Amino acid sequence: MAVVIPFETQPSATINRLLELTAPDMERVNGAILARTGSQVTMIPEVANHLINSGGKRLRPMLTLAMARLAGYDGDGHVKLAAAVEFMHTATLLHDDVVDESEMRRGKLAARMLWGNEASVLVGDFLLGQAFRMMVDVGNLRALDILSSAATVIAEGEVMQLSAAKNTETTEDEYLAVIRGKTAELFAAACEVGPVLAGRAKADLAACRSYGMNLGIAFQLVDDALDYGGKSAKLGKNVGDDFREGKITLPVVLSFRRGTAEERSFWTRCLKQGGGSDADLDQAISLMTRHRALEDTIGRAQHYGAMAIDALALFPSSPMKTALEEAVAFCIARAH
Amino acid sequence: MAVVIPFETQPSATINRLLELTAPDMERVNGAILARTGSQVTMIPEVANHLINSGGKRLRPMLTLAMARLAGYDGDGHVKLAAAVEFMHTATLLHDDVVDESEMRRGKLAARMLWGNEASVLVGDFLLGQAFRMMVDVGNLRALDILSSAATVIAEGEVMQLSAAKNTETTEDEYLAVIRGKTAELFAAACEVGPVLAGRAKADLAACRSYGMNLGIAFQLVDDALDYGGKSAKLGKNVGDDFREGKITLPVVLSFRRGTAEERSFWTRCLKQGGGSDADLDQAISLMTRHRALEDTIGRAQHYGAMAIDALALFPSSPMKTALEEAVAFCIARAH
Repeated sequence: MAVVIPFETQPSATINRLLELTAPDMERVNGAILARTGSQVTMIPEVANHLINSGGKRLRPMLTLAMARLAGYDGDGHVKLAAAVEFMHTATLLHDDVVDESEMRRGKLAARMLWGNEASVLVGDFLLGQAFRMMVDVGNLRALDILSSAATVIAEGEVMQLSAAKNTETTEDEYLAVIRGKTAELFAAACEVGPVLAGRAKADLAACRSYGMNLGIAFQLVDDALDYGGKSAKLGKNVGDDFREGKITLPVVLSFRRGTAEERSFWTRCLKQGGGSDADLDQAISLMTRHRALEDTIGRAQHYGAMAIDALALFPSSPMKTALEEAVAFCIARAH
Repeated sequence: MAVVIPFETQPSATINRLLELTAPDMERVNGAILARTGSQVTMIPEVANHLINSGGKRLRPMLTLAMARLAGYDGDGHVKLAAAVEFMHTATLLHDDVVDESEMRRGKLAARMLWGNEASVLVGDFLLGQAFRMMVDVGNLRALDILSSAATVIAEGEVMQLSAAKNTETTEDEYLAVIRGKTAELFAAACEVGPVLAGRAKADLAACRSYGMNLGIAFQLVDDALDYGGKSAKLGKNVGDDFREGKITLPVVLSFRRGTAEERSFWTRCLKQGGGSDADLDQAISLMTRHRALEDTIGRAQHYGAMAIDALALFPSSPMKTALEEAVAFCIARAH
């Protein structure tokens, strides 16, 4: 899958610059996260910290911080909003694991395997409540509106995914609607709220939102490709998890559409009826290779990545802008 | 269980006056509820309306409306806040059913039995998001703070209940801490936010909050007693559900503490190990009768009910005040 990235000035595929520029703010976010997972009900910090300290990249809160700075914000409300974004994300993961009956998350046992589905549902609810409390503390109604709307859109995306589950006839557009909701909306909201605090004009907010939305789509597409070709150590989950769960992702959508009648029966059998074997997974990957489904999924990701970078074009050059451009290339380069 | 209610001037045990006085506002709340369960993802209104239209009394939003009027509020923000309160409640019920593995809710199959646990978790998340969006629409940061804090306290109460599950040595205080969180906090928040919109003084807000908190405790105590003695048609669930789920409620706490060593082994066997038989349930009810556990649970409810009514004393007489006093008596009289 050696694909040339078609950016005019090709940003380096590194997240180091973004990590460096947001490091001081990120430290404060980590402090807020630690403080807000606290509860006298000891099971809450246990469950929450199991996931929160499991080595996630904290990409979403990092975007909130970076965008606030890019927009010239010099207050400190972005720290609490960033922590709220990470809590919303963590709550979603806890609930997702219950919905998907996942056993692993980020290379560790999923919280539900250790404390049960009950705790995962309820601690997710707790974190969602804490996320809203932090947003309310910041007191910006526009930011509250963006993040609370994102919460409903994320849930809608997840339900849409549930409705489309195991339906191999899902179209690419339907699949895109799912990932816009379940993944990209939070990226978009995370990117928009910092500039909102900075009081930027509508066009700037739209630009930042568009960067987040398109980066989020690219991010999910790469994730979906990695599920059929990544190394489990890298992703913290196993190759073929989506396949075994009967999850319809773009590599499947493309392979199904491009396949013969016989191949389509194969996809239907494995995904609709579930429980594909290891031999089935090998066959699935070989069909994807034949139809260039993984390569083209990454190609689609590059398209959205390019849109993300173009969305930032109206901001003047700055180290933060370069860092955000590089972050896009980094998210896509995970696929190589 | 004929117990004389020890109020000085005994309010009639009817909710009719409250229903009448809030009817015009309640119609608007019902409209908001209907509008906000809408989604292009058809599974969402299906699942949400299954529960929302299942004949719940909508007591919590009614309290928000009543308290707003009692406090002299003449705007219309209380309608959206009341709808938000009902959505928070519905979200909690959807998640509770998953946590408790309940099969019935309000006399109908629980949503999770029809659409699966996945849909119950995700539609609950959607409704929680919509609740926050409505609060943000109203734009009162103090009300947002109260309701978002309530969301975390409710989740804490539920996790506390989970931690205490099947522990027959739970004390009455520990049990009270659980029901303050999981039930009474939302009653308290529902009662406080209307007067907040009206811009009432701190003491008034505290009075309304106290009414809600104590009514909520009384309400839950009566529910817990009814689970061992109510008619299933009335509650929409079966006598003994809590017993079979191993849920530790006050009737159990009192019976266990007042029981002999042999009786305590009985409780431990049935509740810790779970799956008590019908004969076990008969034995449980007979022990509760011997130790006056149900009667005393209702007695405790009357105590909190009296506190709720006293909390309103600083408001001048009005039909709404009388209606709120009667609502307390009504909630307790359900036990007879």
